[in-house]
Amino acid sequence: MATIAPSRRVRRTPFSDGVEAAGVKGYTVYNHMLLPTVFRSVVEDYHHLKSEVQVWDVACERQVELRGPDAARLMQMLTPRDLRGMLPGQCYYVPMVDETGGMLNDPVAVKLAEDRWWISIADSDLLLWVKGIVHGFRLDVLVDEPDVSPLGVQGPKSDDLMARVFGDKVRDIRFFRFGWFDFQGRSLAVARSGYSKQGGFEIYVEGSDIGMPLWNALFEAGKDLNVHAGCPNLIERIEGGLLSYGNDMTRDNTPHEAGLGKFCSTQTAIGCVGRDALLRVAKEGPTQQIRAISIDGDIPPCDRAWPLMAGDKKVGQVTSAARSPDYNTNVAIGMVRMTHWDAGTRLTVHTPDGPREATVQPKFWI
Amino acid sequence: MATIAPSRRVRRTPFSDGVEAAGVKGYTVYNHMLLPTVFRSVVEDYHHLKSEVQVWDVACERQVELRGPDAARLMQMLTPRDLRGMLPGQCYYVPMVDETGGMLNDPVAVKLAEDRWWISIADSDLLLWVKGIVHGFRLDVLVDEPDVSPLGVQGPKSDDLMARVFGDKVRDIRFFRFGWFDFQGRSLAVARSGYSKQGGFEIYVEGSDIGMPLWNALFEAGKDLNVHAGCPNLIERIEGGLLSYGNDMTRDNTPHEAGLGKFCSTQTAIGCVGRDALLRVAKEGPTQQIRAISIDGDIPPCDRAWPLMAGDKKVGQVTSAARSPDYNTNVAIGMVRMTHWDAGTRLTVHTPDGPREATVQPKFWI
Repeated sequence: MATIAPSRRVRRTPFSDGVEAAGVKGYTVYNHMLLPTVFRSVVEDYHHLKSEVQVWDVACERQVELRGPDAARLMQMLTPRDLRGMLPGQCYYVPMVDETGGMLNDPVAVKLAEDRWWISIADSDLLLWVKGIVHGFRLDVLVDEPDVSPLGVQGPKSDDLMARVFGDKVRDIRFFRFGWFDFQGRSLAVARSGYSKQGGFEIYVEGSDIGMPLWNALFEAGKDLNVHAGCPNLIERIEGGLLSYGNDMTRDNTPHEAGLGKFCSTQTAIGCVGRDALLRVAKEGPTQQIRAISIDGDIPPCDRAWPLMAGDKKVGQVTSAARSPDYNTNVAIGMVRMTHWDAGTRLTVHTPDGPREATVQPKFWI
Repeated sequence: MATIAPSRRVRRTPFSDGVEAAGVKGYTVYNHMLLPTVFRSVVEDYHHLKSEVQVWDVACERQVELRGPDAARLMQMLTPRDLRGMLPGQCYYVPMVDETGGMLNDPVAVKLAEDRWWISIADSDLLLWVKGIVHGFRLDVLVDEPDVSPLGVQGPKSDDLMARVFGDKVRDIRFFRFGWFDFQGRSLAVARSGYSKQGGFEIYVEGSDIGMPLWNALFEAGKDLNVHAGCPNLIERIEGGLLSYGNDMTRDNTPHEAGLGKFCSTQTAIGCVGRDALLRVAKEGPTQQIRAISIDGDIPPCDRAWPLMAGDKKVGQVTSAARSPDYNTNVAIGMVRMTHWDAGTRLTVHTPDGPREATVQPKFWI
């Protein structure tokens, strides 16, 4: 395996000193920023995530901040999800598409106030799209990337750890809601959310200077909880069907293909870019869609799309795959043509190590 | 050093098989794609680049293709450089800015025809900005990322190697011009350009399927020329003052701060986004600017901005730095306040390993 080269362009985070001290072994780059991928081993990290509590440097979930009188209008232009019922204090998972309905990102919208939003982004420079739209439509809104870096606390003991640092009130935060909590005199947005199915929180750390103090406070408070540094876990996120933009869907795909049709209220999301195209898609339905797929045998790391074959015919592709200790199979995410997407369909996946038998699953594992 | 984690999101290139076979030791991620950073060692690669010829996988210089009747108008909206005199067959280095004059990218524009352009981009999703502008202004132009992957041939023996594969006519290509050359029945744009000061070419490889055949043809033809796999070399590009977007300048900087004022003909580039802001900048001049800087002593890898101090006062920052064997000093690129940017000014740079003496240079080394 090649190492990752140091440069300012691949940005460090406010938590990088802690991540390094915790012995990070692998990185990826996400939004031009370092994102840890493994500490002890992907399997050890996986078991620990499912039984204990981890602190995650997910600062790479950069925020696009919208401020100004047109912020809410702009937000609705950016997503086919109907935002009319959304209140300050709520987080919405919002697919974002271009004028043809192709996905540009799948961020979480954080409504701070009617005229102030954060868009917590997946791996694409969504800021540039938003700035282009604002400029083209001459909207009265400021768009920028603020000094806000999410820190994840994930795993079954997350509530206990968080309560020790922020007080018992954090236990009352409902899923995809956030509240304001004090840390060293600063008020931080704390949401019940995160890129795992093990429960937990994301702290929107505003101000890089308190990154390491908060990191250290969590580790200090969690010693007897066996807290470890962690990161989004490849195995667990596939088991849970948590999609990764750039891996499982790209600009080539509609939200409906990505299985995100339920987040598209295209009829009522008036003004959203791509509405015409998505109305058509919603009417006809997608011809391919994300599926959980199990794969037999040994597989290499999935660093490219693996063709899914029915005999000689390509009927889809696998884009994420890993060996699951808990389910004793290779768990995978793939895009499958409608002719072959029914649960139980047997297919062949062409990996760089050769063909493997695969089975379309009725649902994800977690 | 941590390894880079495999995933489809960090895209392989049409040349990755060749890069791996050549023993790549380090990668970075650039436009969501693998970019090699070292093969033997940065120093060995450096000496070889300056004396022989290298083949570079720079597929990560993705293209934003503009096609349609509004393509030329759009292109001029995107950059403050005056494009009126530009002819098909020419390449222009074109800073691109937002409405405030902040740099979004510093790509090379390739004019294929009046209504067809490639923008060969640095590391930001410029496609999203361009699509936002096109949508907002309802321009009649198609914008997409084509299957085009640049392959660099760099070093003093580049002409000899290229002539063996494409014929002697390649020798006639002038700097920042391109011509069409046949390879295995395909017509490929070949430009005299590249991210080094050692001379050479960039082949715009259209069609991933001919990536490895071309890679192999170059290595086969260049055996007695001592051809090696190479990549943009940190030391050589600093010596040559070749800026790196994301390292040496960001959206916080104007082209004038980046020393790119000569590429901004703001008065005549009518219609360009950010013109108002840049007219103001051009009138007043920047208050900080890129400078070549030498640093004494031993320095660590530069993976973050290092403050440049005059006594207790921060007067700039160093953003790229490396030990230069040929110039027997640490060569660096920094942004320096006008109060301290005169050649010969002695400053202190705060590296993670401690303070080092630094000197503002009159110009870059190559």
